[in-house]
Amino acid sequence: MNKGLIRYVMGWVLIILALMLLLPLIVSLIYNDGCWKYFLLISGACGLAGGISSIFKPKKSQMFIKEGFVSCALAWLLLSIIGALPFVISGEIPHFANALFETISGFTTTGATILGTDRQIEDLSHSMLFWRSFTNWAGGMGILVFILAVVTPLSGQSNMYLMKAESPGPVVSKLIPKLKNTAVLLYVIYIIMSVIELILLLIGGMPVFDAVTVTFSTAGTGGFSIRNAGIAAYDGNYYLQAVITAFMFLFGVNFSVYYLVICRKFKQIFKFEELRWYFFIYVFAVAAIGLDLTFRSEVFSSQLDIWHHAAFQVATYQSSTGFATADFDKWPEFSKNVLLIVAFVGACAGSTGGGLKVSRLIILVKNVFKELKTMLHPNSVVSVKMDGKTVKDDVIRNTSVYFTLFIFIFIASVLLLSFDKMDFTTNFTAVLATFNNMGPGLNLVGPTKNFYDYSDFSKYVLMFDMLAGRLELIPMLMLFKPLSGVGKRIKK
Amino acid sequence: MNKGLIRYVMGWVLIILALMLLLPLIVSLIYNDGCWKYFLLISGACGLAGGISSIFKPKKSQMFIKEGFVSCALAWLLLSIIGALPFVISGEIPHFANALFETISGFTTTGATILGTDRQIEDLSHSMLFWRSFTNWAGGMGILVFILAVVTPLSGQSNMYLMKAESPGPVVSKLIPKLKNTAVLLYVIYIIMSVIELILLLIGGMPVFDAVTVTFSTAGTGGFSIRNAGIAAYDGNYYLQAVITAFMFLFGVNFSVYYLVICRKFKQIFKFEELRWYFFIYVFAVAAIGLDLTFRSEVFSSQLDIWHHAAFQVATYQSSTGFATADFDKWPEFSKNVLLIVAFVGACAGSTGGGLKVSRLIILVKNVFKELKTMLHPNSVVSVKMDGKTVKDDVIRNTSVYFTLFIFIFIASVLLLSFDKMDFTTNFTAVLATFNNMGPGLNLVGPTKNFYDYSDFSKYVLMFDMLAGRLELIPMLMLFKPLSGVGKRIKK
Repeated sequence: MNKGLIRYVMGWVLIILALMLLLPLIVSLIYNDGCWKYFLLISGACGLAGGISSIFKPKKSQMFIKEGFVSCALAWLLLSIIGALPFVISGEIPHFANALFETISGFTTTGATILGTDRQIEDLSHSMLFWRSFTNWAGGMGILVFILAVVTPLSGQSNMYLMKAESPGPVVSKLIPKLKNTAVLLYVIYIIMSVIELILLLIGGMPVFDAVTVTFSTAGTGGFSIRNAGIAAYDGNYYLQAVITAFMFLFGVNFSVYYLVICRKFKQIFKFEELRWYFFIYVFAVAAIGLDLTFRSEVFSSQLDIWHHAAFQVATYQSSTGFATADFDKWPEFSKNVLLIVAFVGACAGSTGGGLKVSRLIILVKNVFKELKTMLHPNSVVSVKMDGKTVKDDVIRNTSVYFTLFIFIFIASVLLLSFDKMDFTTNFTAVLATFNNMGPGLNLVGPTKNFYDYSDFSKYVLMFDMLAGRLELIPMLMLFKPLSGVGKRIKK
Repeated sequence: MNKGLIRYVMGWVLIILALMLLLPLIVSLIYNDGCWKYFLLISGACGLAGGISSIFKPKKSQMFIKEGFVSCALAWLLLSIIGALPFVISGEIPHFANALFETISGFTTTGATILGTDRQIEDLSHSMLFWRSFTNWAGGMGILVFILAVVTPLSGQSNMYLMKAESPGPVVSKLIPKLKNTAVLLYVIYIIMSVIELILLLIGGMPVFDAVTVTFSTAGTGGFSIRNAGIAAYDGNYYLQAVITAFMFLFGVNFSVYYLVICRKFKQIFKFEELRWYFFIYVFAVAAIGLDLTFRSEVFSSQLDIWHHAAFQVATYQSSTGFATADFDKWPEFSKNVLLIVAFVGACAGSTGGGLKVSRLIILVKNVFKELKTMLHPNSVVSVKMDGKTVKDDVIRNTSVYFTLFIFIFIASVLLLSFDKMDFTTNFTAVLATFNNMGPGLNLVGPTKNFYDYSDFSKYVLMFDMLAGRLELIPMLMLFKPLSGVGKRIKK
């Protein structure tokens, strides 16, 4: 393990964090909420420590896959712990575990909150609310890729490994030959789309501060809201909700699609299997829930309400944003189950969304058919194809193992949560909501409730799940270092 | 598809079924409950139809894998439908869907029941109760293997495919070179163990009829009981429960172990990895639940009660029997979650138990470690080993696909059940209990409740799950014939 390199990378993480903390500082000065001193203190300390750590370049700057995973996990822990300090020092979320939960939930774009029980969201000062929502935006596109590919390009293959560690989905593809340019392009697309959403929200009459923070949460598919009532706080304004619905859906799309749009390669877009599946899943889920709400429930009285809320809620679950316009915990069981499944599948790879990812689902489904065929016709050669190309064996293997690990960690988390006295539905959906970086669950962690009542132990389990979900398991598992040792022992 | 062969095999299934139906007929005459005429009628019709169908041997008697799977699924459907008729014709379970549910639950060794709401278990006549419990016993060891390998050995490789289709576990191994002899040996072991249990129960003072039926249900790891209260009906008698606990555990062990015992190859038994894992899972689960009940619950007052019930309940969940001595739905959440996980993993391959199977778990876990290692050291060659031998790639692939399918079918079933107005915990555990051939779930399908309240639609979903769980998915999926077509269409 190249420790010098990891120290160097962590130095840069601290510097970027110091810069990010200047934004809420400015907000604090604008709204005069008196919190600027906390941000200044933490930002200064970060900048100093980061500067010292990154003065000396490491002797060997070649990053291997192990360093990639470990830096990734460490960077995210560092961001989360320091990012939680403003809440703690200012006393606005005094309990550390709660503040850390909130920050990890922010950076991982989960949007699960512990606010709303002893302390209302509206009790927080403007700068804290801004920081909280900003973590959603910053976490969305991967901070580490930004630092390493854009700010300080290390040598050679390095960044590809990092991108592998931090980016969602089974395959990481460079859109354009040079990785740095790919990264810059992705950030440009991200910023432009965010600005468009912001403008559309402002046109709809949303207050500036609300519009900025809602944009942050939508773009990162995070789902934090600065109102206890969530997006329902802007109820009556269907235009605003329609804008948010559209952008939640769009930010859940594989960003390669937008690259194709820029290049005007429209034919290729229609050939993009993941996009097609993503779209059809959305349409089917909205139709299923719309019909269920129409014929088997009396939650809404008008057809407009039904389809509006169905469209919003499916978009928010599929993109793993987790906003709520309605208390869907009161919806019929079938609709709730559809939402849970949609959240489980999640968004496209290469988007800001969470979940298993549509492309993994495609590979898994096609692989099942392939194996069944091979079983019936042992001599025939069948292969799994996506976008017209054969999916490589190691990608299929990785996807299968990812799925296995996903289910194992899921089961273990539900078991660990069961030490608390919550019911099975609450625990199950709490894990589903955090592991898929979605946000609210059902029952006691439903859309009108929050995660406050869980014990600290359970909160740490859920924090692990959020990080594991965002970083797609492997980096988090690497932190439990003596992996090969365990393997040996288990293999006996 | 060789239709002549399938007709021939179905003919033999009917003949064996006709013979099996003579047993409750005899019971009916002994207890004079007047039901003998129903059994006589159905047995006669079966024998006639079966005789006609099996007069002519098919031209080609070579059975390929497709025929194996299809005969397997059809045979089980035939057994279930005809096996349900005595309940319907006699009017003791007049509604066909309910009778079919009960019979499939019996043959698949699930033990889930619809009795206990409009009709108590004790309301059934002796011969019906006998038939119901006998299905547990007959289903345990695989009826088709019996018919094909023992009664009418078809040519060549045939039976290996059938054994593959009907036997649980990732690999089917012949203990001794000739398949017929292997099958006979397994049945002999099965019968001897059943007789030993019966004798031990009689020594404990259990009434003869009870002892016979309890033995049937234990040996098949089915879990039907002839009392509404289940095994709790014999409460106070810890000896009886201890005997049942031991035999539930033993019938969940891979039968190869008993073959090794017979051959006195004790060293090999200790090297048997699946047995070791099965044993440790049992010990850990009992310890976890025992401690949970001691320190975090007041359900039981004495340590003896706690450990006794923990030992019983883990054995019944792990072997997928599903007996109940206590209303574990009132146990703390953690204990319940441990039980659910134990049921999910299930028993050993090559046993009468259900679930994912311990050996599949071993392969999945080891494969995860293997892939993580390969990820870190791309050039190293790592392989998955079990019992000292390298597990073949196609077994690993099959196991991964099996797991994927298992989870997919699980999710789809929960979704379909959600049309009914039950809660999530009920639906989730109902699927868990039937798909793993275990029996009772939690909440509305808990140990003191039953499946009566589900709609017919939901019952058919659960029946499919029971059959898919028992036959390990593939044969059931083969029934949805145009598989290659679907594959093509999805692959586009």
